[in-house]
Amino acid sequence: MATFEKGNAVIGQSGGPTLVINQSLVGIVKKLKKYLEIGKILGAVHGVKGILDDEFVDMKQLDDDLLEKIAKTPSSALGSVRLKPKKDDVLKMFDVMKKNDVKYFFYIGGNDTAETAFIINEISNETGYPLKAFHVPKTIDNDLLVNDHTPGFGSAAKFIAQAFIGDNLDNRSLPGIKVNIVMGRHAGFLTAASLMARKYKDDGPHLIYVPETTFTVEKFVNDVKEVYQRLGRCIIAVSEGVSDEEGRPIIEKEVFFSTPETVIDKDGSLLQKQREVDSHGNIQLSGSGALGDFLAMIIKEKVGASRVRADTFGYLQRSFLGCLSEVDSREARLVGEKIVDYAAEGKEGGSVAIIRKDSPKYEIDTIFTPLHTIAKKTKSLDSRYIINGNDIDASYLKYVSPLVGEIPEIAIIEDDRI
Amino acid sequence: MATFEKGNAVIGQSGGPTLVINQSLVGIVKKLKKYLEIGKILGAVHGVKGILDDEFVDMKQLDDDLLEKIAKTPSSALGSVRLKPKKDDVLKMFDVMKKNDVKYFFYIGGNDTAETAFIINEISNETGYPLKAFHVPKTIDNDLLVNDHTPGFGSAAKFIAQAFIGDNLDNRSLPGIKVNIVMGRHAGFLTAASLMARKYKDDGPHLIYVPETTFTVEKFVNDVKEVYQRLGRCIIAVSEGVSDEEGRPIIEKEVFFSTPETVIDKDGSLLQKQREVDSHGNIQLSGSGALGDFLAMIIKEKVGASRVRADTFGYLQRSFLGCLSEVDSREARLVGEKIVDYAAEGKEGGSVAIIRKDSPKYEIDTIFTPLHTIAKKTKSLDSRYIINGNDIDASYLKYVSPLVGEIPEIAIIEDDRI
Repeated sequence: MATFEKGNAVIGQSGGPTLVINQSLVGIVKKLKKYLEIGKILGAVHGVKGILDDEFVDMKQLDDDLLEKIAKTPSSALGSVRLKPKKDDVLKMFDVMKKNDVKYFFYIGGNDTAETAFIINEISNETGYPLKAFHVPKTIDNDLLVNDHTPGFGSAAKFIAQAFIGDNLDNRSLPGIKVNIVMGRHAGFLTAASLMARKYKDDGPHLIYVPETTFTVEKFVNDVKEVYQRLGRCIIAVSEGVSDEEGRPIIEKEVFFSTPETVIDKDGSLLQKQREVDSHGNIQLSGSGALGDFLAMIIKEKVGASRVRADTFGYLQRSFLGCLSEVDSREARLVGEKIVDYAAEGKEGGSVAIIRKDSPKYEIDTIFTPLHTIAKKTKSLDSRYIINGNDIDASYLKYVSPLVGEIPEIAIIEDDRI
Repeated sequence: MATFEKGNAVIGQSGGPTLVINQSLVGIVKKLKKYLEIGKILGAVHGVKGILDDEFVDMKQLDDDLLEKIAKTPSSALGSVRLKPKKDDVLKMFDVMKKNDVKYFFYIGGNDTAETAFIINEISNETGYPLKAFHVPKTIDNDLLVNDHTPGFGSAAKFIAQAFIGDNLDNRSLPGIKVNIVMGRHAGFLTAASLMARKYKDDGPHLIYVPETTFTVEKFVNDVKEVYQRLGRCIIAVSEGVSDEEGRPIIEKEVFFSTPETVIDKDGSLLQKQREVDSHGNIQLSGSGALGDFLAMIIKEKVGASRVRADTFGYLQRSFLGCLSEVDSREARLVGEKIVDYAAEGKEGGSVAIIRKDSPKYEIDTIFTPLHTIAKKTKSLDSRYIINGNDIDASYLKYVSPLVGEIPEIAIIEDDRI
């Protein structure tokens, strides 16, 4: 039977948390516990930062009952981090790992996390430190290559579906124009999931903008005007990362003057600050209502509607308690278990990816894929799903619905007068 | 047995929708259907606007199966409105009612809705139009007098609890300062419900600001600084209606220059617009991220923290599908049924209010109360719950928890290093 070399294992979590990232953590821990060759299972506190600082949780001390509760708890139980280690950092990490007799490293996260695992793996090969490094997928953005979809996405998509269903009903009741900003820096999968809210005639979202097509304020205004004149209301889903033809985010280009980073002070002087950038080079998009407020202002000005509102769904999309997709939970657990299987088989330097089987019923499989196939790269929404730069084709539902699962049923009074 | 005079009834929904307002609608409809004296049950499309325009849905045409699905659907199924009718409007409404042989009018909503019912009732008394007018309570703000609490609040409070639990876990994982703006123009009940998120040591929200106490930017900055220096992170719950010592909302006073209504245009000129006001005189507070963004900017400047984020929960608080409190649903149905009982007994010109019994187990009763006791007035959070202007006393949990009911369980790794 396949097994491990004698030694200890480190697990870390990195990047933006999700509702099911702890399922993957618990999947790895419970599976590793079955192997006598694995001595300690160390949880790195705040990912690579915990390794650098020699800060670990002894995961074998946590009983199964607690582990199962943690598995159902949103966010990263070990703490997360956004840190791309430099060569010196990695060498320092190897010192700490050596001291702790670490032979296996499992890192749960998105493409930046896979990049970190890749860097660590490369330097281990160069320097001869005997580490086997693995990545386990997680991201609500659903933008990892090789994978059909990623753990964390299904639950976030469920949040988006339930949010837009509710908001559409609210807007039917008190009509107006409503802009909802959805997470997604480069990929529109999550924003496209708003399509699930359409059930009855004239249901919103009526317009959907993803980062994969060029966004211009002019087209946006014309689109909104057309819907508003036709229906007397309009619900709009906009990815936070929508960009111009040169790929420059609208939030950076157009919203400059209305962001909190640039406002007029009481005395009339201009306060200007740089937007925040993390060590992977990502500009802060979330955690501000600026893009939504900007688009609402433009609509008020140019469309002339009286009731215009904007909501930015923000961190609720990845953290809201109780909005779990069952499928997503199960698959997040599975990828954690599977990476341990692959590691036990002697594989190394790779990630586990979810593949969808070509079957009438929704079924998946997993494969092992080298780290370089996932690291740093971004998968985009297939262009066949994007209609006219402002909508998503109904065929996307076939892709997304099985990942979301059951959604509470609603009904309306179907009456032309409402 | 008590019964009705022969005639028709009109039901309307008004003001901001909730998750359970349709339970009250269905409660009224199903109960009225039992009385042979009531001919037609007319649903006014968009409240008093539907009466003015003679636009009604025949509620008897909707079968019980559909009614039960509608009861579980968020938002106002008949459409809502924010309209305070003038005397001429009411006289016109009486013409339409006379034409439709309407003797009974049920209006579901908050204190503005009760005011409208009161105005209609007064003019009916003055002019001798034989109308019996009733109000049925609904508001996520929980700010109606006489009532221990209002239908709609429990489900919104559940949303707030689940949102803050998730956000607190997210912030444990990636520490920083996080401002969350919660609905509540004059009353802090909903913001105070964020207290339910505290379970483990140092759980957020660490600071809670309600409209019932004076908000100053200076105190706010000092409070945040203290928590951030102590814990390295800080989660803050802020009511959208927080105001200065003269009762002027901070959003109006301080946020002026960063709202979408006042921004610098590309050419450097200042775009200024009046903020929106409805016919009850309420300024628009929701549907913009301006207050949160302003507070985040101030914190970045004055506290010097690197990771500062703001989320404005917005319309999700009253519309998010699948976040129902069972107790809230049941009570919303009950108040609809009870108002019909009171009407059948010959009562008129009043509302049904929820009273909490003084018993060890949570139990309620309802009473009939005159419209003037509810109309326009606002109930505030009792000052005994408010601590130091920046926190809520744990005794508030005894008040709010039974209204929210079950919340999914979570667990964390209790380790000083995390």
